Amino acid sequence: MSENNRKGVLLVVSGFSGAGKGTVMKRLLEKYDSYALSISMTTRAPRQGEENGREYFFVDMETFEQKIKEKKVIEYARYCDNYYGTPREYVEEQLGKGKDVILEIELQGALQVKELFPDSVLLFIMPPSAAELYHRLVSRGTETEEVIRKRMRRAVEEAQDIEKYDYIVINDDLDTCVMHLHEIVESVHEEARRNRETIDRIRKELQELLKGE
Amino acid sequence: MSENNRKGVLLVVSGFSGAGKGTVMKRLLEKYDSYALSISMTTRAPRQGEENGREYFFVDMETFEQKIKEKKVIEYARYCDNYYGTPREYVEEQLGKGKDVILEIELQGALQVKELFPDSVLLFIMPPSAAELYHRLVSRGTETEEVIRKRMRRAVEEAQDIEKYDYIVINDDLDTCVMHLHEIVESVHEEARRNRETIDRIRKELQELLKGE
Repeated sequence: MSENNRKGVLLVVSGFSGAGKGTVMKRLLEKYDSYALSISMTTRAPRQGEENGREYFFVDMETFEQKIKEKKVIEYARYCDNYYGTPREYVEEQLGKGKDVILEIELQGALQVKELFPDSVLLFIMPPSAAELYHRLVSRGTETEEVIRKRMRRAVEEAQDIEKYDYIVINDDLDTCVMHLHEIVESVHEEARRNRETIDRIRKELQELLKGE
Repeated sequence: MSENNRKGVLLVVSGFSGAGKGTVMKRLLEKYDSYALSISMTTRAPRQGEENGREYFFVDMETFEQKIKEKKVIEYARYCDNYYGTPREYVEEQLGKGKDVILEIELQGALQVKELFPDSVLLFIMPPSAAELYHRLVSRGTETEEVIRKRMRRAVEEAQDIEKYDYIVINDDLDTCVMHLHEIVESVHEEARRNRETIDRIRKELQELLKGE
């Protein structure tokens, strides 16, 4: 749409560990200024090198539970006795500004978001093949055999639910993947159901013009 | 999708007379070789300069009605005692080859196609404003006042049903409009529901890999 007042799209991105989500998101944000990346909130302790407000917002259990009660998180999950979730304020603020907001979260969170924001778009990034996924995990050289096996098993689980996503994008070549992702978001903006205002405007203008005859 | 065996998308394009559909389609076909334009069949007589198989397939009433009976047209309408319709064979042949097939037809036909091919995508091309539509019709210099008024009235009617389309694209700048159209079609190819085979393949590969451990 060429309307200047277009509303932001809420984009939920998931993908197997090793599919290259992080790199894809980084490049997407560098390349286009229409996106804003949501930063999750967690109760786990910061790891070395992590900064509050960059990797995560680090809060204590009491604060997190208070925010859940006040409906100030739009999705959350509990792993290993820690909460992870998405603060509502930043997301709504950025959408209001017309930014396309990216949440990089897993399926359970994605489904919570879809329920709260039915207009959100769920996107799953896939490797071109399972062999390639395995290869990428191994070639990082930083993971133990045990961790790699765990991730592959996790991928099998996640693969059960890919149909619940709206789009799948294959990450074979980084730039192609980023381009496809951006194409999807741009085309989502052109869905008729998201452009009621433009349709109504043209409709009224047409009627005015004919009345003036 | 980077799969080579991707199936073609059936794309139904409508738009107000004067919105520039014809020019947009021409440019789209010149620019990308992934498209095939369906040619309609009609019982009206060819006008000067029209060629059988280029503007239309020209047939007689009996032939057309026989084709309707044999379900060899996927949509048709009758205007001014003449039939206009889309022959099925070409569409299915091109979709089978992986081509994205474009039907340039009006709403009634579009809805018939959507019913027969639920995976088809309905796209409406709009001028940036009603004033611009009027301006384009006038500046052609070929239409009488009477014809222009008739087209504007027709546009008011057509505007009632724009919500039935899947996407709207504004034709402000030709190249931008063509790019948007192409982006939409490319992103449609990445809908999860159109990629069951890829999802199943990766799923099986993942299971095989883990079995082999």
